[in-house]
Order: sequence, then structure tokens, then C-alpha cells
Amino acid sequence: MITAGVYGGRGYVARECVRLLVGHPEAEVTWWCSREAGSAESSHRNLLGTGLRFVSENDLPDVDVVFICAPVGIAMDLAPRWLDRGARVISMAADFRLRHKGSFERLYGEHRAWALLNEAVYGIPELHRDSIRTARLVANPGCFSSAAILGLVPLVKCADLGIESVVVDGISGTSGAGAGLDRSMHHPEMWQTVIPYNAVDHRHTYEMEAQLSLVAGHGVTVHFTSYYGPFGRGILAACHVFPQHLPERSELLDVYEQFYREHPFVTVNRLPHDSEAAWDYLPFPSVADVAGSNYCQIGLDVDRRRGRVVVFSAIDNMGKGACGVAVQNMNLIFGLDETTGLVTPGLGI
Amino acid sequence: MITAGVYGGRGYVARECVRLLVGHPEAEVTWWCSREAGSAESSHRNLLGTGLRFVSENDLPDVDVVFICAPVGIAMDLAPRWLDRGARVISMAADFRLRHKGSFERLYGEHRAWALLNEAVYGIPELHRDSIRTARLVANPGCFSSAAILGLVPLVKCADLGIESVVVDGISGTSGAGAGLDRSMHHPEMWQTVIPYNAVDHRHTYEMEAQLSLVAGHGVTVHFTSYYGPFGRGILAACHVFPQHLPERSELLDVYEQFYREHPFVTVNRLPHDSEAAWDYLPFPSVADVAGSNYCQIGLDVDRRRGRVVVFSAIDNMGKGACGVAVQNMNLIFGLDETTGLVTPGLGI
Amino acid sequence: MITAGVYGGRGYVARECVRLLVGHPEAEVTWWCSREAGSAESSHRNLLGTGLRFVSENDLPDVDVVFICAPVGIAMDLAPRWLDRGARVISMAADFRLRHKGSFERLYGEHRAWALLNEAVYGIPELHRDSIRTARLVANPGCFSSAAILGLVPLVKCADLGIESVVVDGISGTSGAGAGLDRSMHHPEMWQTVIPYNAVDHRHTYEMEAQLSLVAGHGVTVHFTSYYGPFGRGILAACHVFPQHLPERSELLDVYEQFYREHPFVTVNRLPHDSEAAWDYLPFPSVADVAGSNYCQIGLDVDRRRGRVVVFSAIDNMGKGACGVAVQNMNLIFGLDETTGLVTPGLGI
Amino acid sequence: MITAGVYGGRGYVARECVRLLVGHPEAEVTWWCSREAGSAESSHRNLLGTGLRFVSENDLPDVDVVFICAPVGIAMDLAPRWLDRGARVISMAADFRLRHKGSFERLYGEHRAWALLNEAVYGIPELHRDSIRTARLVANPGCFSSAAILGLVPLVKCADLGIESVVVDGISGTSGAGAGLDRSMHHPEMWQTVIPYNAVDHRHTYEMEAQLSLVAGHGVTVHFTSYYGPFGRGILAACHVFPQHLPERSELLDVYEQFYREHPFVTVNRLPHDSEAAWDYLPFPSVADVAGSNYCQIGLDVDRRRGRVVVFSAIDNMGKGACGVAVQNMNLIFGLDETTGLVTPGLGI
Repeated sequence: MITAGVYGGRGYVARECVRLLVGHPEAEVTWWCSREAGSAESSHRNLLGTGLRFVSENDLPDVDVVFICAPVGIAMDLAPRWLDRGARVISMAADFRLRHKGSFERLYGEHRAWALLNEAVYGIPELHRDSIRTARLVANPGCFSSAAILGLVPLVKCADLGIESVVVDGISGTSGAGAGLDRSMHHPEMWQTVIPYNAVDHRHTYEMEAQLSLVAGHGVTVHFTSYYGPFGRGILAACHVFPQHLPERSELLDVYEQFYREHPFVTVNRLPHDSEAAWDYLPFPSVADVAGSNYCQIGLDVDRRRGRVVVFSAIDNMGKGACGVAVQNMNLIFGLDETTGLVTPGLGI
Repeated sequence: MITAGVYGGRGYVARECVRLLVGHPEAEVTWWCSREAGSAESSHRNLLGTGLRFVSENDLPDVDVVFICAPVGIAMDLAPRWLDRGARVISMAADFRLRHKGSFERLYGEHRAWALLNEAVYGIPELHRDSIRTARLVANPGCFSSAAILGLVPLVKCADLGIESVVVDGISGTSGAGAGLDRSMHHPEMWQTVIPYNAVDHRHTYEMEAQLSLVAGHGVTVHFTSYYGPFGRGILAACHVFPQHLPERSELLDVYEQFYREHPFVTVNRLPHDSEAAWDYLPFPSVADVAGSNYCQIGLDVDRRRGRVVVFSAIDNMGKGACGVAVQNMNLIFGLDETTGLVTPGLGI
Repeated sequence: MITAGVYGGRGYVARECVRLLVGHPEAEVTWWCSREAGSAESSHRNLLGTGLRFVSENDLPDVDVVFICAPVGIAMDLAPRWLDRGARVISMAADFRLRHKGSFERLYGEHRAWALLNEAVYGIPELHRDSIRTARLVANPGCFSSAAILGLVPLVKCADLGIESVVVDGISGTSGAGAGLDRSMHHPEMWQTVIPYNAVDHRHTYEMEAQLSLVAGHGVTVHFTSYYGPFGRGILAACHVFPQHLPERSELLDVYEQFYREHPFVTVNRLPHDSEAAWDYLPFPSVADVAGSNYCQIGLDVDRRRGRVVVFSAIDNMGKGACGVAVQNMNLIFGLDETTGLVTPGLGI
Repeated sequence: MITAGVYGGRGYVARECVRLLVGHPEAEVTWWCSREAGSAESSHRNLLGTGLRFVSENDLPDVDVVFICAPVGIAMDLAPRWLDRGARVISMAADFRLRHKGSFERLYGEHRAWALLNEAVYGIPELHRDSIRTARLVANPGCFSSAAILGLVPLVKCADLGIESVVVDGISGTSGAGAGLDRSMHHPEMWQTVIPYNAVDHRHTYEMEAQLSLVAGHGVTVHFTSYYGPFGRGILAACHVFPQHLPERSELLDVYEQFYREHPFVTVNRLPHDSEAAWDYLPFPSVADVAGSNYCQIGLDVDRRRGRVVVFSAIDNMGKGACGVAVQNMNLIFGLDETTGLVTPGLGI
């Protein structure tokens, strides 16, 4: 059994990491460290019956892997210590995601462990699987970043399409806003609405631009806007691209299928448009179909009349967008089958 | 009292027109014509207690105004008859919205009353108020069209910004899908999801392009994608624009405020970004705040780093996006105050 | 025009009272008093464009009616002052709802204006319409109380049924929990759940017992349990009754119809059970059908096999359960038609 | 590996059984039989990527276990055949749930395999675990039945409480209504509502009465009413009981804890009432905390003033209420640890 330690108290990322680890056949939660003492069950009633308790930072025993589920700024202090103790570290916040120090510090403030950036691996297995296998430190990606990058990489990689700029709209479930109480996330305010936030210059934009530029071999500008919708889990990212020439839809689907052939958690939706007009949602991903899982579904369409490709990418922001992919990364690090503990499909209903 | 006739049976547009007319102090529903006989209350239980009944097409009495809430193709047959009888006609479907016959027929099929296009007025009061006042026939706009056009017109009108192309993402509540049963709109499938549909070449695109081009004085291409989200009422349209030079946010807000100064149902949100990061949703419209009303709220932001303006426009698709604006048009036609029966603000909660 | 003053800041009851008064043709908000200074629009974005501002307590001008939308304990201090100034007072909290001082003080704490109880009228027009017409002080009822009382009064009044005890389950939308942030009302926790609260001895129980006992002429015990469900507006109260003999369903519907004949906001659902099994929801009220309105819908069924009557009563907790009925009470006080400003049917969708 | 066959096409019970079996480490779906030919993925997009296809009834190979996910009336024909072929059968519909033939036939129509009732075991492991271990045929329980029975059995078993009658309100997510399109389940009609259905004499009542009477050793009458709420998964059952004497809350919690000590999927919530009034939901189950899982959470309260005990029981209707417990039953039959493939806690968010 892989022994795991988790930092983070009332937050949802900690909750979900623990939930997945409790269900994982080859891992166990050795400790859950939080400043809040006592039973974790009153903060996380879905874990009622597990008997899990928060422990303080003193005398934490060694573990194989540490999940740091804390606001940005904590992992940069904790990671070096646990690496020194021989643990692998999966950092769930932004501490090690960006390699451009100026951008990092403008967005997040001072960095106190910049040297570690050299060995931190950006935790998208579909891009960096081999590096993750040998990584000591994984920078788990932002939720919107995962959705947009998985949706765009195969396209951006096609040099002949010449993609230098994309428009991305990403709508997230409210679990993405975290457990901190805020008036905009008060249920009576949120239950029937869609609301934009971080309308421009969202911090995940920088992750998208960095990873897409890496793949493209040239700079890619991402015009990203984020929204919350009245549901708890999931992200739908819509990526609008204006390529230099316009392939057929089926050609593009081939490109995607080819790219993700060896990646078990990304599924390309090739269902046909239905002849009955009404039920014409088939060829596109629906957030519900990946909710509660580590899967990503991708669909796309082409506007031949106006010269646009739109790619849709759906994930569970708590799953493939955060804790699912963290467990996938853990599996890779410890030589397990990548899918261990993650194979159950999305909820659907 | 204005006497009104309504065509349409189980559909939601008919339901909502009747609901608003029942609450209107200066109008009354004289008849509600549907192929389905009998009580309208079993189809529309929110109208229980009104005693309204469906009547058949035979011997409908004269009325001042007829709301044709039927699928496209019906109004083109009914409108001429009622105009001949001296009634004003508000056509709720697409029959009279497009002036380019080729586009119309490709999208909707044959048109049997094309001559009427000359006098049909596109029913957005903020663009065509004076023409509506004297119109015999109003082509009530598409729901997405209203949201996008109201969000973009002030910007497109600024010649110095040189806007020839926009990207619009519009998410709608499911009432926009209509009352027809469809698997994608089955509650268990839809309650926790966001799903794209008509990913490209949505028929409302043509209305947006026509109206925006009219205002701009040159062709404007609209790259529009539509979604359904897990709520019943409302549309949030996000309009991404890449102008030739980038005004300050406050300058743009001035432009919008100036444009809508005389229009009581469009509100520009100038609330400041809050200093507390969390509650930073203030300056943007939230669908809930206009749900159940005829109001449109508009907010915007500017990405100075990457050169983008994003404008958000929120309406109730059943209100300002359909039946609310239809009643507003009726008020204009009959010389009432534009706001009669429509003044209650959005639900908020 | 009736001039109205409103006490209450960020709360939802104040918000909704103002929303309804803004839409009321014969009333206007003269002032909105709150400790929070400045624009009311950043707290209540659905009111954006109204220009309403919070004013402080100093120098409030005289008004015809004051709506006190503040937590229990405030109205008992404010009401005497405004009555002295000649205003009518509608108290939205529990201050004047109970006539049994011991119960009041056990539930809510000390009462500082008990003498006013003698003239306070419990604000359910279907029970006390004539008294309300002449009241200086209306104790607006609790939301669950309104739902249960309207659902039970006609039954309890039937002496031959001998009803001394009822079981009431009431599920409310989350607006009932108020605007105060609380973890259980955080959208990610609440969006997909139903949760009991105040499982026993809910404070509204005492209002129900008092009013039902009054009607019955003997003590009626109410076993009430409350829940929040994942929606914003509305209450469905299910009232289980075990009468001494069991009338036919149609007889009971007659009783209800007779009782509410002169009451425009209570509708008895007599739609038949549909022969198609699936769409067999017709004869029962659905919260959506009264949401956004001042209507109450009532339906019922009889279990002849086991000897039970179950009555369902649906209201909008913010409408007929709070602010709608407050405006109805205002209408009665000022001699307007009871339905003024409240006639629009429920949203339905 | 246990080889499993599944009957059922577009239905949600089949979908969820397959979803859980795909994620089960010791079982696999050998075939999925449906009249609808072709890919199962267009009916069940959450299963996209599994490659599962519907097969016809001809030449189905032998399997270890058959899950019959079909409307009542099918399993009574299929079960005998598969038992003859040596398979174990888990019947998901009502075919084998009731031992009183008169009741069965009045509720469901003719039974064509009544002899099998003798060996069918009612599939609630917390009541019949040993019998399930050796059963050839399991009658998987109704979703409401599971919720209510688990909530009531420990109480009913206490002879000194003398419980002969209970009132049960059960609210279900809409997945309980099945995949068949119906107007009441159309998202625009359902998204913001709660609606009663089968207000009296719901067919699950008979399962509850049979099982509770069995445990009590005398007849227990269940007054059950069911509702749909605006969410997809989960049931909250509230059970109102009026015992002959009233134990303390903590005593009752002891009774429940003792009863479920050896049952890993039923958790008794003993969290204290919080001193802060607002967050006083702690000691009661919330549907979200068991959604997506096989767990049941139970909480309770006592009204000493009026003499009532109310017990709340929450399950996922698709999980512990249907397919989760079916897999649990399969585990028992095949000698696996009861929790295999089911250990992940509920979603929480």
C-alpha cells in the first residue's frame, strides 16, 4: 500500500483527495494534517464513518507521498521538507506550475523555493507522462488549464493550422470556488444563475499559454474568460480557433483520436449528429457524463461558412481537473497502472 | 383595455405571453387559440385559477393585437389574415426576422408571405423604437439575438474601434429548448450539466449579423456558439471583441451608458471591482438578477495585456428575450408607457 | 400613492418587499433604512437601475406604512414609534405573531412591547381579512406557517373530522435561510441535496398550532419538520391527517373550494388524475407554479386503505410566504383591491 | 472475474449497474442485452469509451450472474431460464419483492413464476445477509423501501416502543422517475420545483410494511408519500414515529449504532448540534453526502414536548437504493468482501 499524507482542512480539494484515496485499492491515508483539530467528519460529512481525524503538524510520520491541498504559498514551504524526507510531493495549488518567475510573482507574490521549479513536472499525464513517472515533485494543474489544454493541444500541435491565438470560455461548477464562504456562492444567489468572474487575465491563462506554446513551438495567446454555473462539479471549456485553413470535421476528429490513442482518460466523441433535430446534442460532451470521474470528453465542430473550429472539453473540475489527475499522477509515480482506482465512468445522471 | 389574442398551445412562449398579459393592467387575453381543446390549465398549471381555455380557430373575434406563438412557418400564414382584419401582429417566431430571402429559405424553408417583410419591424425597441410605434407587424427577435445585439450594438457603433468580427458564447436556460420532450432535456440528464448545441451556424447568428451590420454600416461576422445550462430562465451572452485600439473600461462604460440613457430596460453595471478578491463578481451581470423580468444587465471588462474587450449581457430568455419584449412592443404600438406591466425588477433570488 | 418605508439592509425579505413595491402601481418606496450606508444596488443587484440607496435612521420622513424586515427583536422597538407617528406597521419577523407570552419568550427571548399584542393582527388574509383592513399593526406570518395553515384550515374546521393532531413536512427553498452566510447554504454543499433542519419544535410550529386551534375551537397539535431543498423559492407543505371518518376526495375538494371561494390567491387543484400513468402529477401542486407570485395552490389525496388524508400546499416562501402577503395586507389596509400589484401568475418555468 | 450479463437498454438502472460493474475490480460485463441494437454509447454517453454494445437475446453466453434491469413483468419470465442455466439472478424490478400474491397482482398484474417466490431473497443485506449469500435469486428492493426500511428497522424492532404505524415522507431525485420522457420530468418544468406523486398507496409501501412487520413481529402500517425534487440522485426519507414511551435521543442513537455495528454501509450520524444556530444541520443526513455511493446515513431527533421521534435516512437512489446494493448483493453471493468496488464515499460536493 502506498502511504499518503494530506495537507488541508475544510477545503474541497483535500476532501476530494481523501475521498479518492479512501476508495483506492493500493493507497491509504496515513494522516490528514490541518490546523483544525479533531474529527474531519464534521467538516466533511461525506466521510462520516471513515473515522478520519485531523492531526497537527507535529510529528507527522513518513509517508510515500504528500498531497498538499492548501492555498498557494504553502506548498513552496512544505515541499522542500518532504522531499528531504524522501517523500514524493503532489502540489495541488499553483506554487510550481509556472516557469516564468516574473509572471508567477506578479500573479501570486514572492516565491520562496524557486530552485524546485527545475524539477517540478506539470501534472498533465497526456503531455508529460514519462516525466511524471520519475518526478519527485508534481505541479498538479489548474482545473480550467486541464480542460483547455486537453481540448487544444492536438490542434495547436498541427503546425499547418498556424494557431497563434485562441478564445476560451470556461464554465465551472461552484466547487471550483472553494469552501470559503462568499456571498456570490450563497445558494440563494447562485442556484439559478450563471455569472462571469475573472473576466480577463485569469491566472490559469498563464498555464494554458505556457503549455500550449510549448507544444506549438511558438507563442500562443489565450483569451480566457471564466464563469460559474449553477451546478457543483464539472467544467465545460469551449475553445474557439481560427486556423489558416479549415480541415473537415472528420479529419480533426482523427487528429484528436490519434493524439489520445494511448491515453485512457480522454475520450473523443465521434457520435454522429442525429437526424432528428431535437436530440442533436450527441456529438458534444456534457459535463454530467464526466462528473464524478477522471475522464475528459472532447467534441468539436467546424463552421465552414465563417472559418472557425470550436472544440469542447468537459471534465470534473474536482476529478480530472484536480484530485483525479493527482491520483493518476500518483499511480504513475509509483508504477501502478495509470487507471488504478479511477476506472469508474462518470455519473451521467 | 387592449384586447389580445394568442396563438399557441402547450408551448412556453404562449404560456409566458399569457402570464404577462394576465398581469398587465391595460391588456387582456380575449382568446387563446390552440388545436388542443379544453382547459389551458392542465397544460399550464401556473395559470390554474385563471379559467383560461383553449379555443379553436373557428370564429375568433377581432382583437387589437395578435401574438403568434407558434413554430416558424405558421405566422407567415396567419399574419396577413389578421393584418387584413385590422389587428396588429407580433410574430414570436423567425418568420419575419430576416430580410435576406436566401438566408431565410436555407435556414427555415419556403416563405409564403415575403412581401410583408417590407413592413415588418425587427422588435428590439432599443434599436427601432420609433418604427415599432407605428408598425402593424413586429418580428419579435430571437432570444440569443436580443442578448448579443444589446451587448454589442454600442461597441459596434464606434467606428474608430473597427469591429468586423466578434465571438459570442451564449448560455441559455432550458426553457429556451421549448416544451417539446427531448431526451437531452430530461431532468435527470440535464440537471447537473452544461451542454453545447448548434455549436456553429446557429440560426440566430443571422439576426445578429444583420442587425449589427446595420448599425456598423459594414459587415460584421458573428462567431456564435450556444449552450444549455441547468437552470430554467435566462441567457448570459459573452461577447469577445478585438478592437483596433483599446479604450479604458470606464470609457466603454460611458459609451454604453450614453447609448442606453433613454432605454429603461437596459442597465449598465458600473459597480466597482471589490477589493476583497472573493466577492469580485459585482461588476458583471448575473442571470438571476434579470430572471423573471424584462430587464437586461450589461457589464464589461478589458484585457489590456492581450487586447480584448469582453461584454456580458444578461436577460431572461422568456422575458426580454421573448415575451417581455413582446409586451414592451405592444405597449409602444398602443401608445402606452413602454414599461407598463413590466416594471417589476428581476427575481434576484 | 401609498408611501412606504422599509427597514432592513442586505436581507432577502427587505429585497423582496422593495422589489414588489417598485412594481406596485399604487405604492412607492420613500425610504429604505439600513445600517449599511450607500447604494442598495451592490447588495441587491436585481435592483440595479432603481437608484435606491440605504438611508440611516436619522430623520426618516413620515410614511403611510412601514415594513420592518429585520430579525426578531427589532420590530418590537420600532413599531411603537411608527404607530405613534401615525403609520401603519407590517412586522415581517416573529415579534407579534404569538399571543402566548411564555411561548414567545422561551422561543425568542424577552418581549419589550407586549401590550401591542392586543392589536396586532396575524396577517393571513384568508383568516383575518376584515381585521387586517382596520389594523394598525400586522404580524406578517412565518413562511411555513402560511403554507401549513392554508393547507389545513378548511379540514380542521370540519368538526366531524375531529382533527386534533397533524404531521406536517415542509420543504423550503434556500431563500428561507436568509442572506447570512452559512456553510450549509454554500452552493457547493447545497446544490444537489435535501437536508432537514429544526427537525422538531420549529418555531413556526407555534404559529400553526395557535391558528389551527383557533379555527378548530380546540387544541391542535402540529408535528412539524422542515427541510431545505436545492432551489431558491418556494415551499411545499405536506399535511398528513387521520380523520375520524374518511370523506371522498371530491367531497374534500368541495370543502376547500367552498372555503377559498372568495379568496383570490388560493387555488384548489381539481385536475383529474391522468389516465397515462407517467404524467400523473397533475392533481398536485408544484412549487414552480407559484414561484415568483402571491398564489397558493392546494391539492389533496385520500388513502382509503389506511385511513389518511394528505393535503399539499405550495407557495413562494418569499411571495405568499412573506412579502407578497405583506403587500396584500398593505392593499387591504389602504382599501385597494386586494390583488393590486400581485396579479401576475407564478413562473411555471 | 465474475462474469455478468445485464438486461436493459436505455434505462438508468441498467446504465448504473454497468457503470458500477465497469469500475468493479472483480467483475466484468460479459454482455448487455437490449432490443435496441448497436452502440450503447449513444444512449449512455457517460459510458463513451467503454466500447460497450447492446446485443440481442439470441445466443447469450453463460455468465455467473444476470442483472435484470427491466420493467416489472420481464424478470418473472427471464429468471427461471437463467436459474436453469446455473446463473445467479438479481432482479432489479418488483417481480419477486412481495410474498403476498394478492397484493402483488393488484399492484403489478399477473405473476407467471410465483413458485420462485419461495427462494427469492429480499435484497437488503442489513436484514438478510446470510440468506443472500446462498441465494440463487435476489429481489433487489425498491429505492424508497431501502431508505425507509433502513431508517425504521432498529426502532420497530424495539418491542417496548410498540410501533404499529409510521408516517414516511420520501423525496427522490428525478433519476427515480426513469429514462422515459414525461412532461413532468422535462427540465424546464422540474428544475425549480418539488412535486408530490403517488401521494398515497405507493407500491413501495407494501415492501416497507412487509419487511417492517417481519422485524416487528406484528403488523406495521406505513403512511407513505413520495416526492420528486430538483436533483438527480438521492432519497431523503423522513420517518415520523409516535412511540409508547419516549427514549432520549442518545439512547436511540445507541440503538441504531448497535444495530448497524456490523454493517459497513450504514452510518449513524452522532455529530452534536452545533452551538452556532446557523450551522445546525450537522446531526442530520444530507443527500449529497451519500450521492454517488452505496452508503446510507441516518440521523434522528426527538420532540419531547409533543411525543415524536423523527428518523432521517439518506441514500443514493441509484446506489444503495438500486445498483449499489445490487453489487453488494453480488459480492455476498460470490463470497467477496461485501464492500468490493463500493468503498468510495459519497460525493459531498
